[in-house]
Amino acid sequence: MIKTNLSIAAVALGLSSQAQEALWWKTPTVSPEINPDKTVTFRLKAPKASKVEVTGDFLPKEVLKGKSKIEVPGKAELVEGENGIWEYTTPTPLMPELYSYSFIVDGLKTTDPSNVYLTRDVVTTSNIFLVDGPQSNLYAVNKVPHGTVSKVWFNCKTTGNDRRLTVYTPAGYEKGKDKYPVLYLLHGMGGDEEAWITLGRVAQIMDNLIAQGKAKPMIVVMPNGNVDQQAAAGYAPTGFITPTIELPHTMDGTFETSFPEIVKFIDDTYRTNARKSARAIAGLSMGGFHSMHISKEYPELFDYVGLFSASVGFKGRAESSIYQNCEEKIKRQFALKPALYWISIGKEDFLYKENVEFRKFLDKNKFNYFYLETDDGHIWKNWRTYLCLFAQKAFIPSNK
Amino acid sequence: MIKTNLSIAAVALGLSSQAQEALWWKTPTVSPEINPDKTVTFRLKAPKASKVEVTGDFLPKEVLKGKSKIEVPGKAELVEGENGIWEYTTPTPLMPELYSYSFIVDGLKTTDPSNVYLTRDVVTTSNIFLVDGPQSNLYAVNKVPHGTVSKVWFNCKTTGNDRRLTVYTPAGYEKGKDKYPVLYLLHGMGGDEEAWITLGRVAQIMDNLIAQGKAKPMIVVMPNGNVDQQAAAGYAPTGFITPTIELPHTMDGTFETSFPEIVKFIDDTYRTNARKSARAIAGLSMGGFHSMHISKEYPELFDYVGLFSASVGFKGRAESSIYQNCEEKIKRQFALKPALYWISIGKEDFLYKENVEFRKFLDKNKFNYFYLETDDGHIWKNWRTYLCLFAQKAFIPSNK
Repeated sequence: MIKTNLSIAAVALGLSSQAQEALWWKTPTVSPEINPDKTVTFRLKAPKASKVEVTGDFLPKEVLKGKSKIEVPGKAELVEGENGIWEYTTPTPLMPELYSYSFIVDGLKTTDPSNVYLTRDVVTTSNIFLVDGPQSNLYAVNKVPHGTVSKVWFNCKTTGNDRRLTVYTPAGYEKGKDKYPVLYLLHGMGGDEEAWITLGRVAQIMDNLIAQGKAKPMIVVMPNGNVDQQAAAGYAPTGFITPTIELPHTMDGTFETSFPEIVKFIDDTYRTNARKSARAIAGLSMGGFHSMHISKEYPELFDYVGLFSASVGFKGRAESSIYQNCEEKIKRQFALKPALYWISIGKEDFLYKENVEFRKFLDKNKFNYFYLETDDGHIWKNWRTYLCLFAQKAFIPSNK
Repeated sequence: MIKTNLSIAAVALGLSSQAQEALWWKTPTVSPEINPDKTVTFRLKAPKASKVEVTGDFLPKEVLKGKSKIEVPGKAELVEGENGIWEYTTPTPLMPELYSYSFIVDGLKTTDPSNVYLTRDVVTTSNIFLVDGPQSNLYAVNKVPHGTVSKVWFNCKTTGNDRRLTVYTPAGYEKGKDKYPVLYLLHGMGGDEEAWITLGRVAQIMDNLIAQGKAKPMIVVMPNGNVDQQAAAGYAPTGFITPTIELPHTMDGTFETSFPEIVKFIDDTYRTNARKSARAIAGLSMGGFHSMHISKEYPELFDYVGLFSASVGFKGRAESSIYQNCEEKIKRQFALKPALYWISIGKEDFLYKENVEFRKFLDKNKFNYFYLETDDGHIWKNWRTYLCLFAQKAFIPSNK
């Protein structure tokens, strides 16, 4: 009988030589450690470093020097202990939330090698950790039925290329026969079709809300709103090394014009309830701008509209019929009485004033909308919260 | 009319404060740069560093000191130029291939901030780049119809938990009515349901081979073969901080025993051709071990079997009926004349001798199999190559 020397082979089995190296080097450093009192300890082994900092959205913000006073997450210094392991513990417990962080070693940003899961926000890769609580638990993978997340391509005639979408279908979709309402969920200018599903934790939020009976089972469609970008990095025909933020056809009306084609593709491909009363569109920042313009341009398509920290200007970055006669188009949209027109924004958001102006316009015309104002600014914490609340109002026609 | 100050707002639109920071800090460093002569230049801005190295599978291997002489990718030193930008260019052109690399700054491994797309191999995160050529072009996203990649959960009665699978369905699946053959593709011990689709570039390989008419349109199912791991990091109920490689129920017979349930789930959920002649099972390393044991245990299920750099021992890590009477079970399997029994391994693989022994056993019994020997060892380069070749032989019954 053939024997395998598993005692030798086991560690190396299925690992590439690069991975073997990683295990070889691997130290048992635990980081981050969420302590029983909800303070959090960060550790990094860096024996040759002279300065190690942690930066993340759990720290008080700093204002960058420069004209436009951009606020960025603060930093805290780790202290070197035994064996070159640096450590920092937050002075106070952290509120329940999903946080992101990075280390800065001698001025160079790096991720935490002890924390395997990484998320990418535009061009920045960060680690995340969860401090559990009633709201943040919606972002966790719990023992509830899980929906399916698919990366789907469709050939778009308006833009003349293949485009990648992320689609969430709720648990039970594959084996059932029901038709589902659809939420179209749009990312911001720096994002792509992966932003909402990774940073926004859409699958976990929807799994949990649906299991708790707080949201209707629905399909969530997350297209790529930068029409020059066929797909996120690694999945685009332009190759792997694509750290560009130059996106020529963004906010020039093309994406908005292509939207009925996306809706048709989804209605043709999935078991959707293809009615206005079963269609929602919402987005963050530029995605809110898109949601406003698309829903006013095609008022027969969407009954639920969500503007999350949205740019709510009437002008795009290029001439387009989409950005003409906006007031008249919005009046026509409201004449059809949308079931929900949602606006939410953080008090510190750089788009706050723009939203005040937009609401004045809506108020002047006595248009009915829902308004939510939260703390903080233009951050994913707010967008996850808005999605959790919006999803509980979607497809429930209490407003008509 | 409401105006948006897009000239100010555009850069920040849709970016979290952390991302704003990233753009603020962003330098126009291009890295890696694939030069016209196919040499490759790496660059990193690190003004405070005293030593910067690059490590990757494009460099000659080094042997780690220690008892077991593990080979790891070599290192090369970058040289500091203007503005703290360090640089290294390979002395010779690189052969067409998909390569992975990391930087080492003063002894600390880090990814390349100029290269957005990252891949994770067990616990190691690396950047990748492609040097284009006839074979490596199969790993690129080309202008061909693209299949769908889904993350699907199923409730497994054998293991008593919910388990996550990656499923590739070929272009045209959603709107067609055809029934498809299914390839079950299994990862190694350190892997999970994301390994083949990211490091193995399965979707791109299958899209390209199918478009070229070189492989039959097929569904590819990639389960998680470590039964204590419900899903990859970030998607498991155990939370985000899970850098463990302790996997108690791995190679103890449980995964093999649960396999008919996986096949039934797939046949119930997708439009499959649910016959032996339309089912293949293949895997790398531990996944090859699983493929050998599953195919001999359930010889009525699979007509095509692929053992890629496989551990081909008859004993598992625990007592299980799966690992009993293996010779008799393999004889029964070959009596049913599998359409393809494939074995491939690199000459430098640490499992090479084990495969020699296994082939002696097959030869002694005059069992018909296909054998391929390549250069190199236990690495993804080989596994991608094996998949490309195996997929072209799958579901074509020339061997009976």
